[in-house]
Amino acid sequence: MKNYKLTIQYDGSRYNGWQVQGNTDNTVQGKIQNVLSRMDDREVEVHGSGRTDAGVHARGQIANVKLQTEPTCAEILAYCAQYLPTDIAVIAVEEASERFHARLNAQKKCYVYRIHNSPVPNVFERKYLYQMTGCFDLNAMKSAARHLVGTHDFRSFCGLRRFKKSTVRTVYSIDIDKIGDEIRITYVGNGFLNLMVRIMTGTLVEVGLGQRNADDIPAVLAALDRDAAGITMPPEGLCLQWVEY
Amino acid sequence: MKNYKLTIQYDGSRYNGWQVQGNTDNTVQGKIQNVLSRMDDREVEVHGSGRTDAGVHARGQIANVKLQTEPTCAEILAYCAQYLPTDIAVIAVEEASERFHARLNAQKKCYVYRIHNSPVPNVFERKYLYQMTGCFDLNAMKSAARHLVGTHDFRSFCGLRRFKKSTVRTVYSIDIDKIGDEIRITYVGNGFLNLMVRIMTGTLVEVGLGQRNADDIPAVLAALDRDAAGITMPPEGLCLQWVEY
Repeated sequence: MKNYKLTIQYDGSRYNGWQVQGNTDNTVQGKIQNVLSRMDDREVEVHGSGRTDAGVHARGQIANVKLQTEPTCAEILAYCAQYLPTDIAVIAVEEASERFHARLNAQKKCYVYRIHNSPVPNVFERKYLYQMTGCFDLNAMKSAARHLVGTHDFRSFCGLRRFKKSTVRTVYSIDIDKIGDEIRITYVGNGFLNLMVRIMTGTLVEVGLGQRNADDIPAVLAALDRDAAGITMPPEGLCLQWVEY
Repeated sequence: MKNYKLTIQYDGSRYNGWQVQGNTDNTVQGKIQNVLSRMDDREVEVHGSGRTDAGVHARGQIANVKLQTEPTCAEILAYCAQYLPTDIAVIAVEEASERFHARLNAQKKCYVYRIHNSPVPNVFERKYLYQMTGCFDLNAMKSAARHLVGTHDFRSFCGLRRFKKSTVRTVYSIDIDKIGDEIRITYVGNGFLNLMVRIMTGTLVEVGLGQRNADDIPAVLAALDRDAAGITMPPEGLCLQWVEY
């Protein structure tokens, strides 16, 4: 039995997120498990670094899987390229130590939220951008973001109201860049709560549009109440960029 | 009555090409004509710089249309953004002289063919790249391309065998670049025959894979016979990049 580390890309548009749910298998994890179970001639479990929600994309999701037939990394790559749907790809495979676990060992994650700030739709990247008109004050957004960086209790930014575990997380950086018509917000942290990136983005967007003050963010954090934060942004603008171990 | 010049982008994947054909209207021209006819309250005709085939994309298709209600350019942009499907966008509108005709006045066109030369599929651009494994000899392709540049009778590269008009065209340049895993072939010419870019690309690909000699290209041109040239490449890798007037 060998353990493998997989790097995975997907266009999440038509999936119910990463994680297998009950008996529906229209999930990314489900699709990959089906292919690798066929290859390994038994039911295998693919452990992702974390779940992504329905409609969210990934350029660098990491997962691990144990295979009894011990194929070479190239064989796994070729098998996945042949049998996975075209909107999911395993782009790299390496052998990992027996104890490597993609979720438990993850140290840092990077998510990117992309807003297409233009009245004209972007035809070619329409599935990977959220389109918004309006005039954004990027400096106000950057000020607000500075209040979110650090180790905080992010309960106000958690989509699960009755979440029982710790809601303390560390956000190492939030970068806000304007690239042509695109506003790109890049988050690096040690982990993110359910919907946390989309709620932080919604809150920053409200600051950018002048609907909320950058200096109100400490009070939003202190409230420990989802209602204190901004809207949850739609999933299509969000992408899991990389995971560090 | 005012005449307008439109710059249009489309993902051609789900369309039967640019040009309206009989009573099917699943064409890009048909979709735009429907929207602008509604705006102008009568049947309008949108003249493209040329037809693109089923599945071919455009980043800079040019068209002109005459509208009796004489809306502002911003009104046309906003109306198109609201009513066109998300895989077609009018990205720029300007008033043109009464005599401007997008097809008759076109001086130069640029097409790009993109090959993803990797065993691993590209998830995010899968609809805009043609995926091919194999080891390409780019220098041989560049040598072959040099034989195609210039004013020639391109009958061997014309998809319509009984084409009655002149098949003489001028190709100003063919650039072949390797960008990461991508081989990008950029064609600039005064006009291109039916399927000409895809047949030239297929011929260059055969040279790149060692199935054909770069120095055989003059004989292919001289044959004036479609069977002398290479395969017709699939449409998804092709994009009309810009048109010059």
